[in-house]
Amino acid sequence: MSMLDEACMARAIELARKGWYSTHPNPRVGCVIVRDGEVVGEGWHVRAGEPHAEVHALRQAGERARGATAYVTLEPCSHFGRTPPCADALVNAGVARVVAAMQDPNPQVAGQGLKRLADAGIEVRSGVLESEARALNVGFLKRMETGLPFVRVKLAMSLDGRTAMASGESQWITGPAARRAVQRLRAQSSVVLSGADTVLMDDARLTVRPDELGLDAEQAELASRRQPLRVLIDGRLRVPLGAAFFQAGPALVVSTLEDPNYAVVGHELLTLAGADGQVDLAALVAELGRRGVNEVLVEAGPRLAGAFARLGLVDEYCIFMAPKLLGSSARPLLELPLERMAESRELRISDIRAVGDDWLVTAKPRG
Amino acid sequence: MSMLDEACMARAIELARKGWYSTHPNPRVGCVIVRDGEVVGEGWHVRAGEPHAEVHALRQAGERARGATAYVTLEPCSHFGRTPPCADALVNAGVARVVAAMQDPNPQVAGQGLKRLADAGIEVRSGVLESEARALNVGFLKRMETGLPFVRVKLAMSLDGRTAMASGESQWITGPAARRAVQRLRAQSSVVLSGADTVLMDDARLTVRPDELGLDAEQAELASRRQPLRVLIDGRLRVPLGAAFFQAGPALVVSTLEDPNYAVVGHELLTLAGADGQVDLAALVAELGRRGVNEVLVEAGPRLAGAFARLGLVDEYCIFMAPKLLGSSARPLLELPLERMAESRELRISDIRAVGDDWLVTAKPRG
Repeated sequence: MSMLDEACMARAIELARKGWYSTHPNPRVGCVIVRDGEVVGEGWHVRAGEPHAEVHALRQAGERARGATAYVTLEPCSHFGRTPPCADALVNAGVARVVAAMQDPNPQVAGQGLKRLADAGIEVRSGVLESEARALNVGFLKRMETGLPFVRVKLAMSLDGRTAMASGESQWITGPAARRAVQRLRAQSSVVLSGADTVLMDDARLTVRPDELGLDAEQAELASRRQPLRVLIDGRLRVPLGAAFFQAGPALVVSTLEDPNYAVVGHELLTLAGADGQVDLAALVAELGRRGVNEVLVEAGPRLAGAFARLGLVDEYCIFMAPKLLGSSARPLLELPLERMAESRELRISDIRAVGDDWLVTAKPRG
Repeated sequence: MSMLDEACMARAIELARKGWYSTHPNPRVGCVIVRDGEVVGEGWHVRAGEPHAEVHALRQAGERARGATAYVTLEPCSHFGRTPPCADALVNAGVARVVAAMQDPNPQVAGQGLKRLADAGIEVRSGVLESEARALNVGFLKRMETGLPFVRVKLAMSLDGRTAMASGESQWITGPAARRAVQRLRAQSSVVLSGADTVLMDDARLTVRPDELGLDAEQAELASRRQPLRVLIDGRLRVPLGAAFFQAGPALVVSTLEDPNYAVVGHELLTLAGADGQVDLAALVAELGRRGVNEVLVEAGPRLAGAFARLGLVDEYCIFMAPKLLGSSARPLLELPLERMAESRELRISDIRAVGDDWLVTAKPRG
């Protein structure tokens, strides 16, 4: 019984992953309905405002849902949002048993969905493949638990920890496979955040280019229908409104200054000055959380990325490491001046994998 | 037949690895003798002056070697060295077939061993698991093919490519598992090479400490019976003869200066001044090759390691990467000042593996 539960939940997680690029601000959720050892319904949440995973799976199962077991990667909702509660739908369909990978930390659910099912006489189990299910929604879960989004800092460096030559020259540190992986990181994020230095130097747009994602047609199509919000940190408003960045679509600019011209041409200007005269990054992250942002991808130079690190705002580093040496005059990974070993930042490397000729190191600050 | 050949050769390679820490300056070689699908003899070369792998295996097989197949990781020798030729021993034992992983590039053998076997009517096959067999003896093979030893540069860095704080503070960048791995790298090397900066700063001895190898008793015992030659690059003879380094045993000091006192207390002083007034490292590497050195481990600071890199003398980097950030003021991996991306050194990362909480990145200069 238990092994079957895990196998069915693994399939539900696989389904949830289909929503990797499209469910924002909702979580990625998958559902499998099994009766007499046979899968009778499968579903996954595609995008906000559309049916939840359970509804898709129940529709496919039809009458065969009666007496069946439903596997869901997240506790079914119990509240009326843009769609009616899934817990009610499962009860109405006559499902006999519900297995959830984890409780929904959303305060509007938080155990109430499972309780409603149990109250209706449905057998309930929770906690199957929970850590795999949590990995589907690191941003949504962090936001539900703390109000803040999950901040991922993407960096590209040489094996000796350098990002560009002293002159600023930096083209093509990493190869095409790494660039596709960065496109996918953008596409899965609610927000792509950068700084004036990067946008000015590279004339960067920071958009998702669906044909560069390296995804199959279905996933690329889903990704193409939602551009992440582009956030530009520009304390002194140095990036001109004629820049490619602003031509590529509406953006949120965060500055210490005010200027009514941004709104006129369709961009939002948010003024958030910290005590040090710089943009208040911690206040910005909190504001993004309030706006329903799950995952923030920081794609910035050593100065801005270093500021996120110094302020303790980083949840995860995604470091693309190119197999080359740029030498000791080249620019550092992060502007992070430390004096003593005791100040060094401890990380935990959770994954290292080959990406073409480059390597992707995933690391998290240690508790 | 072919699959059996590979399986038996894999076992012979496993046996050869037992000599990992002891065969210098000889190659690591293993041998398996198989008759009617049964292993009747196994052997491996333990240390120079003692019998070769084939002799051990033939002794174990005794009369059962007649009509059998012998698997050897390196072409059997055909010349009289400190022991008689193994090709003759195989002929005399009545072996019917010999499978070698690779020809011996030693100009004293170089196909002559296999030819002698074939001339005696023995069926001969070569090239089974050749690349695995080559990996046993990167140093010996490079020396036979070019006259030069294989130079491996060991470095320890933070994830952001730094080796020490600006002050020089550097203790405990990597953890105990990485330090054991470094001990094993020393123990497998013919030479451990360092510079005056490192020896003075750390009061380093650069010896193999058998109880820190993390090996089983048999391997640790073999390693403990052969200390690698310790080579100190000390252009201006700054390390005093009373230093722990010199107390730990005889060493080879390489300098631009001359001083008769080293020989008096049992050390060798080699004067090799280059045109730039520094120690001529290329001349030193060639000299070590002439002395029968297979593998050189460079354990030095960014300046000396950087000099090896600049001169193109590095065959392999073994970089222990600690999961921490030392920041942008900290010391670089290598003193390697480059101006333009076009000068960047291209590497090929051949292996990345976890070593305790740290990671070991193995990389080779490209082409």
